Amino acid sequence: MAQIKGACIIGQSGGPTAVINASAAGLIETALKNENITRVLAAEHGIVGILNDRLFDCSIELPEEISLLKHTPSSAIGTCRYKLKDSEEDDTDYKRLLEIFKKYDIRYFFYNGGNDSMDTCNKVSKYMQKMGYECRIIGVPKTIDNDLYGTDHCPGFASAAKYIATSCAEISLDNKVYDLGTAVIFEIMGRNAGWLTAASGLANVIGEGPDLIYLPEVPFDMDKFIADVKNLTEKKKSIIIAVSEGIKDKSGKYIFEYGADYANSKDAFGHAQMGGLASNLANIVKNETGLKTRGIELSLLQRCAAHYASATDVDEAYLVGATAVTEAVNGATDMMVALKREQGDAYTCVTELVPLLSVANHEKKVPLEWINEDGNGLTKEFLDYCIPLIQGDATVKTENGLPRFARLKKELVK
Amino acid sequence: MAQIKGACIIGQSGGPTAVINASAAGLIETALKNENITRVLAAEHGIVGILNDRLFDCSIELPEEISLLKHTPSSAIGTCRYKLKDSEEDDTDYKRLLEIFKKYDIRYFFYNGGNDSMDTCNKVSKYMQKMGYECRIIGVPKTIDNDLYGTDHCPGFASAAKYIATSCAEISLDNKVYDLGTAVIFEIMGRNAGWLTAASGLANVIGEGPDLIYLPEVPFDMDKFIADVKNLTEKKKSIIIAVSEGIKDKSGKYIFEYGADYANSKDAFGHAQMGGLASNLANIVKNETGLKTRGIELSLLQRCAAHYASATDVDEAYLVGATAVTEAVNGATDMMVALKREQGDAYTCVTELVPLLSVANHEKKVPLEWINEDGNGLTKEFLDYCIPLIQGDATVKTENGLPRFARLKKELVK
Repeated sequence: MAQIKGACIIGQSGGPTAVINASAAGLIETALKNENITRVLAAEHGIVGILNDRLFDCSIELPEEISLLKHTPSSAIGTCRYKLKDSEEDDTDYKRLLEIFKKYDIRYFFYNGGNDSMDTCNKVSKYMQKMGYECRIIGVPKTIDNDLYGTDHCPGFASAAKYIATSCAEISLDNKVYDLGTAVIFEIMGRNAGWLTAASGLANVIGEGPDLIYLPEVPFDMDKFIADVKNLTEKKKSIIIAVSEGIKDKSGKYIFEYGADYANSKDAFGHAQMGGLASNLANIVKNETGLKTRGIELSLLQRCAAHYASATDVDEAYLVGATAVTEAVNGATDMMVALKREQGDAYTCVTELVPLLSVANHEKKVPLEWINEDGNGLTKEFLDYCIPLIQGDATVKTENGLPRFARLKKELVK
Repeated sequence: MAQIKGACIIGQSGGPTAVINASAAGLIETALKNENITRVLAAEHGIVGILNDRLFDCSIELPEEISLLKHTPSSAIGTCRYKLKDSEEDDTDYKRLLEIFKKYDIRYFFYNGGNDSMDTCNKVSKYMQKMGYECRIIGVPKTIDNDLYGTDHCPGFASAAKYIATSCAEISLDNKVYDLGTAVIFEIMGRNAGWLTAASGLANVIGEGPDLIYLPEVPFDMDKFIADVKNLTEKKKSIIIAVSEGIKDKSGKYIFEYGADYANSKDAFGHAQMGGLASNLANIVKNETGLKTRGIELSLLQRCAAHYASATDVDEAYLVGATAVTEAVNGATDMMVALKREQGDAYTCVTELVPLLSVANHEKKVPLEWINEDGNGLTKEFLDYCIPLIQGDATVKTENGLPRFARLKKELVK
């Protein structure tokens, strides 16, 4: 493949994670060192920043601050949930992107996100090819939801999983200290894929996990749920129940929609906004069992707890970023950098390239064979899959007893 | 003071903390080594366990498991919220306590708890003295609320403070990643004392703290709150507001009571049960500003996050436990072990004894002079008080990438 020299744009898209900035560090550090990349720009708020011509110059950032990105949660450059229209329908945005790409001689575009972002990457790539503008476009995977096709797992998932499992174990210990029985309903993110909720089950490895786990992969039946809980409370005084925010009944209606006060607003991708499920289920359990109950929603905490990130996750997030640059310079385009688990007893993971098209707009769910027969727990296969990913505690630099997060200058290119 | 030989009972009382078991480790390890203490017993569920003659024999626990208690959250022995009646009114419980104390030759009683527990200690001590039964009774301070009189600060507070401040910083980073403005209402524990909510302000030291902080010490005015928020949103796109669960209006009515669906059940001490404030305030802010809002309730997470405890807090919690034993053996009784901050630039802290009576049933609030004039933030004095307490990360032993918490046998004495 012929070499190509030019500037690059790095963008972050979709919901933040504890390690999305570790990928940014991998991208920025590797791009700054590469002689084929003449300028390293970062788009404020993803694709929106390109459309608005709001680009940061990464070369003016201090190297130590770029390095601190490895342990800084959330999207340091800024993210978006902007959905590009089909270029056949409306090519306004695409024309504007091409204009900006030409303006800065952008020959590399790296986009770090989930399903929707890979779709964005793919659409931009196809348009640039159609217009005969040479630009190498590589997707970098990111999502706590772990629902991306083509990769063994997604950077961001493991840190959220580690935090969720540990919080669940801590809550479990807290929940059984009194002489009266109590029930905690633990609500975990995940619209359609139950990976994160399943991860709460990791706490069972240390004997403090949830007693019942409900994923969106299995239709939720309220009568069955109540029966499960009643059976359990005959054997156990204090219980923990983990539920995915996205559990649905057999007709596909979200259980949270049965609550009285749920706002049903939708975000830009048409996903319903969720919340309040935990306290509603807690009320149901209280009425049915007489137990004192408490609903706990992990909310944003589970996706930004960089203070407790998995070191494995941080390293892999950095790796996919760095690899995206190297592979693009070597000629790859229209691909996503995926993580591939090697065969063997010891966990090792390498990168490989998968076509964007195969990833875009699919959702990888928890395999049904990893869910127990009762539909309220996980099998050993899930634990075997997950445990290697949460190994190691990230070493976070501190200042006054608190994490020292990266402070970028974020100066716009004039 | 004459030496006295006999058994001891260790009890935990009130809400758990991340380091209450560190105090238990200090108590158990020191008592097991002391030749005047013939037997080390732990009461299942505090005073209730004594009344029910349910006592664990600590000598059969493995030393390494006792040591792991230093990093195990919640009350490993079991706690209670049982309130003793006045012995003049009804001495049934006291007679029973005396019976159990005589049965096991209990000459030392160590009770680890907050205001209510110090009151329990004091009542038991007075009764034993009245009945001529020699028993040395020492209170060991514990509460995330930091509202105990007579001590510079309470073990448990600093770890919760460190977790709250770090979570607040992480949420703050997460909250500003989109191109649209958002507001997070962060609800923090504390019925009448705002120490923990104030601790969220520590995150401002690293530039990522709440923009507005409302404590129960200052009457909450909804009009003023809305004006504060509107002023702020003129200057800043995305904002964080920290509120104590216990904020009240000028008549003393809890703000959460204004919500429609709040259960107004009371616990055994007559405290109203709280919850739901964050989402109610989030709705108010949304209606008033048009911002996208989210209420986040830290719930139990803030009191059991041992994975991120302050090393200073762990050490001090251990110290007050160990000191209680040493001082009791040396003759002290009817006292609480307090922490005293030494004068000088570098933080050092020693223990001292304060009479239980001076501690029982008082609440120490955040000094009004540490709250800013607007009643929506803290002064530098508060930060200076708090920063030394959150120094150091506790070193937690891990297993499969998760904390290895203590596993006690908890065998009942026959």
